[in-house]
Amino acid sequence: MSMPPVRIVMKFGGTSVADLDRIRIVAERVKHERDKGHQVAVVVSAMAGVTNRMVGYCHSLDASCDPREYDAVVASGEQVTSGLTAIALQAIGIPARSWQGWQIPFRTDGAHGKARIDTVDGAALLACMADGIVPVIAGFQGLGPDERIATLGRGGSDTSAVAVAAAIRAERCDIYTDVDGIYTTDPRIVKKARKLDRITFEEMLELASVGAKVLQTRSVGLAMREKVRVRVLSSFAPETDEAGSLVVDEEEIMEKELVTGIAYSHDEAKISVRRIPDRPGIAAAIFTPLAKARINVDMIVQSTGADGMTNLTFTVGKADQAGALDVLEGCRDDISYGEIQTAHDVVKISVVGIGMRSHAGMASTMFQTLADRGINMQVISTSEIKISVLIDAEYTELAMRALHTAYGLDAN
Amino acid sequence: MSMPPVRIVMKFGGTSVADLDRIRIVAERVKHERDKGHQVAVVVSAMAGVTNRMVGYCHSLDASCDPREYDAVVASGEQVTSGLTAIALQAIGIPARSWQGWQIPFRTDGAHGKARIDTVDGAALLACMADGIVPVIAGFQGLGPDERIATLGRGGSDTSAVAVAAAIRAERCDIYTDVDGIYTTDPRIVKKARKLDRITFEEMLELASVGAKVLQTRSVGLAMREKVRVRVLSSFAPETDEAGSLVVDEEEIMEKELVTGIAYSHDEAKISVRRIPDRPGIAAAIFTPLAKARINVDMIVQSTGADGMTNLTFTVGKADQAGALDVLEGCRDDISYGEIQTAHDVVKISVVGIGMRSHAGMASTMFQTLADRGINMQVISTSEIKISVLIDAEYTELAMRALHTAYGLDAN
Repeated sequence: MSMPPVRIVMKFGGTSVADLDRIRIVAERVKHERDKGHQVAVVVSAMAGVTNRMVGYCHSLDASCDPREYDAVVASGEQVTSGLTAIALQAIGIPARSWQGWQIPFRTDGAHGKARIDTVDGAALLACMADGIVPVIAGFQGLGPDERIATLGRGGSDTSAVAVAAAIRAERCDIYTDVDGIYTTDPRIVKKARKLDRITFEEMLELASVGAKVLQTRSVGLAMREKVRVRVLSSFAPETDEAGSLVVDEEEIMEKELVTGIAYSHDEAKISVRRIPDRPGIAAAIFTPLAKARINVDMIVQSTGADGMTNLTFTVGKADQAGALDVLEGCRDDISYGEIQTAHDVVKISVVGIGMRSHAGMASTMFQTLADRGINMQVISTSEIKISVLIDAEYTELAMRALHTAYGLDAN
Repeated sequence: MSMPPVRIVMKFGGTSVADLDRIRIVAERVKHERDKGHQVAVVVSAMAGVTNRMVGYCHSLDASCDPREYDAVVASGEQVTSGLTAIALQAIGIPARSWQGWQIPFRTDGAHGKARIDTVDGAALLACMADGIVPVIAGFQGLGPDERIATLGRGGSDTSAVAVAAAIRAERCDIYTDVDGIYTTDPRIVKKARKLDRITFEEMLELASVGAKVLQTRSVGLAMREKVRVRVLSSFAPETDEAGSLVVDEEEIMEKELVTGIAYSHDEAKISVRRIPDRPGIAAAIFTPLAKARINVDMIVQSTGADGMTNLTFTVGKADQAGALDVLEGCRDDISYGEIQTAHDVVKISVVGIGMRSHAGMASTMFQTLADRGINMQVISTSEIKISVLIDAEYTELAMRALHTAYGLDAN
């Protein structure tokens, strides 16, 4: 009795298909994987630079252009790459064919420009693979309920790849990019950053600032829900079995690290609402209007001053700062606060590790390490597997290097 | 009782949509036509240069690449222009939406890279126009029976436009290009060439060498069959009611010109099969194998030499010359000819006019004019509305200018 073939999805980003030579290398990579006896499905991004050019065209004609037309224009980039990659595969003797989102079909909710995937019909792709043909799927796009092209938003090709992997029940989804894996932290800041062999979905989601440049957050969420094992690796480095980093379910990791990585985010703006007369429900009076305005509040700290007045400090995304201030201005009479202070020269540093769940004392290491360097923590927040602090942005590198060492993450 | 709206198709070629500024001008042209109260459907080509770049990509990867993948890659150009043009229209307040070939659908025979149009479903386009929305259709492409993109071959956007005009029963199909109409002959050769206000479909087909740069022959054939009035005009010249040239059914032309234009073709190769023992059926023995090899024979002349042997001279397309010689070599024993001579420094000059049907003496003007200049006619062929002669290529300009004057075509 022969084993059923193992199915692998291989996804290549824009720099991996940047020109015809790179596309030829992609074809060789696919051949290599196929020579192992695997059935391979390929997902491709647009050639590097093409999407930006198309977006530029659209916005030059109309800064607030029709997102349905934007999608028709921008999705052309992946269409081209899928055809070219199929040709490159055929040229080295690998049967292949391109699949556009509308051909599969790849159904989305039709929120043009930022669509979410509803369903991917794996039947045609499985039939294609069973015939010995490598499907080359245009990433980043699907069909909306209006039967028009809907793109998944920037970086959506990773999500396409994971969705295809789920639809064809692939053993693994390999994301080829221009870095060789996921690191404990940003190697540009911390020289001793170490490549991780394995990381859990949850950790990957929390390490967004480290990982987002590597792997789009949305794709990790989908991989977690669909239990799709994701490998991140470089399309420029030699192929080995140990290449890259594997993002997997917690159950696949026997020896759980206490701390997996250290992330940072400069995307936070701090808002302090000061001298609020203390009364019950004051937090709701502030945060309910913000939620109604679809402004996401991240870290929150409440303190009472010597004058008996309450101060409420929280962070929002920098893009939401102006909107948040408008909302607060609008409810000034309800809350009758004294003043509002804002700051955006702040950074959020997060220590992430699935092992935190079962180990106490992880937070005190962080606090002590920062205190030893004279770094003041403005806001603190914690989740099951993460501790975050908001500090002055000028301490970013100092704090990250100190924490990387303190948690034993430094490479030998 | 109000009149039903007049429907117009406006087709813009690659130079008319070469960049964003040109696309903005296209939008203004459409607005101008729409302001007259017409319902307008737009068909667009790829931005100038894009199709060539895409074709170059495909052929670099594989000179004989899969035409289905070639189509997926190359068709992206029109997809982009359709979206951008819709955005440009919306930006000046004209409701518009892009339509891809697969969305209409535009059904073809699926001969990838050179597909023929089977049917165009006008229902969705008519509904779109009835809603006050300008459909902007990606030219050059449709869907094959395999549900994959099939392109119509180079210049196919003209054919797309005529097919759309037929499907929506348009009053007229305006082809915007970079010349301001159809001329009696090539103005680069004959300075006194004159723009024609009207020309019949039949004449236009015969004037391929003059018109092919302006209007793809296939589109004229379709227009003739579907009785779609076609206007050729420049997208760079000011819009007037007299702009361009109108290609129409014979019935629409009251005063028929004896001669409408003079065409030339350098695409002919002459083949002479010499010293064939004369016997019945010798022409069939030569032309049947050529037909089986799908080689199109154009002009034919048979002559008998002083030795009683037959000489047979004919022309084929230059691209078919080598194939024709192979075929003749293969039937050497059957025909037992003496030798084969070839020449490709020849040109076919054709005088075309619907009035020839009812007027004698048109050919003698041609023969006398050429004889007066000492130009030897190697082969002569005639059709109902055309007289063609094959002459030495170096006499091309001399012959064309002399004939242009002789037939009274010179501009004042």
